[in-house]
Amino acid sequence: MNQSLEPRLTLAEVERFTFDVLLAAGADQPTSKAATRAMMHGTRFGVDSHGIRLLPHYVQVLNGGRVNKAPNLKVANRFGAVASLDADHAHGALAAYEAMDLATDLADQFGIGAVAIRNTSHFGPAGAYSLHAAEKGFLGITFCNSDSFVRLHDGAERFHGTNPISVAVPVSGDAPWLLDMATSAVPFNRVLLYRSLGLALPPAVASDADGVDTTDANATEMLAPLGAAFGFKGAALAGVAEIFSAVLTGMRLSFDIAPMGGPDFATPREMGAFVLALKPEAFVDRATFDAGMQRYLEQLRGSRPRDGEDVMAPGDREWRVAREREAAGVQLDPATSQAFSALAEQYDVRLPKPIDAPAS
Amino acid sequence: MNQSLEPRLTLAEVERFTFDVLLAAGADQPTSKAATRAMMHGTRFGVDSHGIRLLPHYVQVLNGGRVNKAPNLKVANRFGAVASLDADHAHGALAAYEAMDLATDLADQFGIGAVAIRNTSHFGPAGAYSLHAAEKGFLGITFCNSDSFVRLHDGAERFHGTNPISVAVPVSGDAPWLLDMATSAVPFNRVLLYRSLGLALPPAVASDADGVDTTDANATEMLAPLGAAFGFKGAALAGVAEIFSAVLTGMRLSFDIAPMGGPDFATPREMGAFVLALKPEAFVDRATFDAGMQRYLEQLRGSRPRDGEDVMAPGDREWRVAREREAAGVQLDPATSQAFSALAEQYDVRLPKPIDAPAS
Repeated sequence: MNQSLEPRLTLAEVERFTFDVLLAAGADQPTSKAATRAMMHGTRFGVDSHGIRLLPHYVQVLNGGRVNKAPNLKVANRFGAVASLDADHAHGALAAYEAMDLATDLADQFGIGAVAIRNTSHFGPAGAYSLHAAEKGFLGITFCNSDSFVRLHDGAERFHGTNPISVAVPVSGDAPWLLDMATSAVPFNRVLLYRSLGLALPPAVASDADGVDTTDANATEMLAPLGAAFGFKGAALAGVAEIFSAVLTGMRLSFDIAPMGGPDFATPREMGAFVLALKPEAFVDRATFDAGMQRYLEQLRGSRPRDGEDVMAPGDREWRVAREREAAGVQLDPATSQAFSALAEQYDVRLPKPIDAPAS
Repeated sequence: MNQSLEPRLTLAEVERFTFDVLLAAGADQPTSKAATRAMMHGTRFGVDSHGIRLLPHYVQVLNGGRVNKAPNLKVANRFGAVASLDADHAHGALAAYEAMDLATDLADQFGIGAVAIRNTSHFGPAGAYSLHAAEKGFLGITFCNSDSFVRLHDGAERFHGTNPISVAVPVSGDAPWLLDMATSAVPFNRVLLYRSLGLALPPAVASDADGVDTTDANATEMLAPLGAAFGFKGAALAGVAEIFSAVLTGMRLSFDIAPMGGPDFATPREMGAFVLALKPEAFVDRATFDAGMQRYLEQLRGSRPRDGEDVMAPGDREWRVAREREAAGVQLDPATSQAFSALAEQYDVRLPKPIDAPAS
């Protein structure tokens, strides 16, 4: 964890580098733009597992052929307020942003719009697409599934992916309310981090090869669903994401998806995802909606905290990190820093310029 | 827990009694029918907290004036695939079944349909309305909020209600996939049960008056959100139910709702709720959808269990209870049995006839 040795970089410089590398690797403009935007969502909000550390992975899958460098996205079918978007094995971020744009167009016309995404790939942070809807004034909901990592409640093998659920809601005069949660107890990256630090995991978040709870990060073979003793709720929420992402799209179920980490980086993974947008003023006048959100958040943030703790609305932590990083820049972890240097050399792209100001 | 002393009753007899009492108390036919159907959902599936034990409460609120005995439900506004239903302070079950019927009509026409319910009241088991959609071939989603009972993550006062989320999905040739979960760690009825049994609660499900975790049912002043150490996820899911039920309807937030248990049973509680329906074949052909659900459930039910445990799909436990109770009948808890006797006398309605077969 010697992050303090890495220089601080502005978000703008990191964004410029990420975009230029994708373009130099042969991705078309829309792909480079969407993938960069999604990764910068992760990096800006402190969701570093889904931030620019994914750049070398995305370069690898674009070059390998798993992800299409110049996809031809098309609406496969439309019915009233819903559509299916065939993403032609695009980068998942391009597919999800396009799908959410279509969903908000439909919601503008019908009050609600839903788009099932076919033939897509890893899209990074689910919250990026829900937030995209909220920034346009809509409620946004995003689901995806992923390769298996999480046992069922009382299960002893990997079954669901970490299957995220994200919801974003516009708030007048404030940043959107933003939920982006894995339906597993913790992300697998937490396990990897605790492994490297030699620390014990919290109880009831990880299991060994027989599905038995373990706090030993090295013995961890699968994650537990959210909820500990009530893990049937977390597993069922994973099921909601699974049914919307895979069954309503006709795409692969978690246990049929090739592992994100290869070794095959050539074959498209045939993943699905699902986005939904709602137009508040189709249900209630906008002033009532806005006043409701404001009162809800005011009461929530003013609710009595436990001793020494804070109460926060979903997204509050992320918006705070975003403000900090916009002001002070961001430090890469050592592995990503090394990968950036290699990509800079390979594609002849200038590395992000460090901030001159003295490091903290 | 001397349930074995109570006689066994057929579901049909319990249903007949419940309906006749509501009608005799002055509720109109549609109200009596919908409220009975919702309570029987709870009793049939073993969700007894939301079953026919609610009958005396509903009689009280219908007589008190909180709930309208002969409401005039109307669509307050429509926009494309969505609508707002003004329930005229109807029984929540009538409002929710009507709203889901409207949502499935909209979904049939537009692929998706959503209905925000205004001026409604306690609707019992959220799963009843999602299941209603699934039985017609649609995916159904139901949200509501309720009076405050659950602290925020790191909070020290009651904030959200137990705010349920329910999703039901049709499965060709099988019972629907059915999720109906409170976003609190446990229902408050569990606390009451443990109090009466003198048992310690599981860890991290309940808190004392300062929000500190307690396993003492008598010291419990509020529930914890789902997720224990990751309770920010449970609290955020409660927020999703809250925003859809109260903000998109312009109705009361949890902390503004009068307590279900009175003492005021005369004033309408101005609650909201929200239902959503999706038509699978608007997204993907029905055969693909059906095959996807079947493969998903087959793999899920065949997934390796932990030693001595079972893996189950959401709803599997409930369908098993339903089959048992349809065959063997149901026993009332002593308090409900007493209340039934009083109602029988008050309204001159014949008590459910006990099953003649020897009790188990």
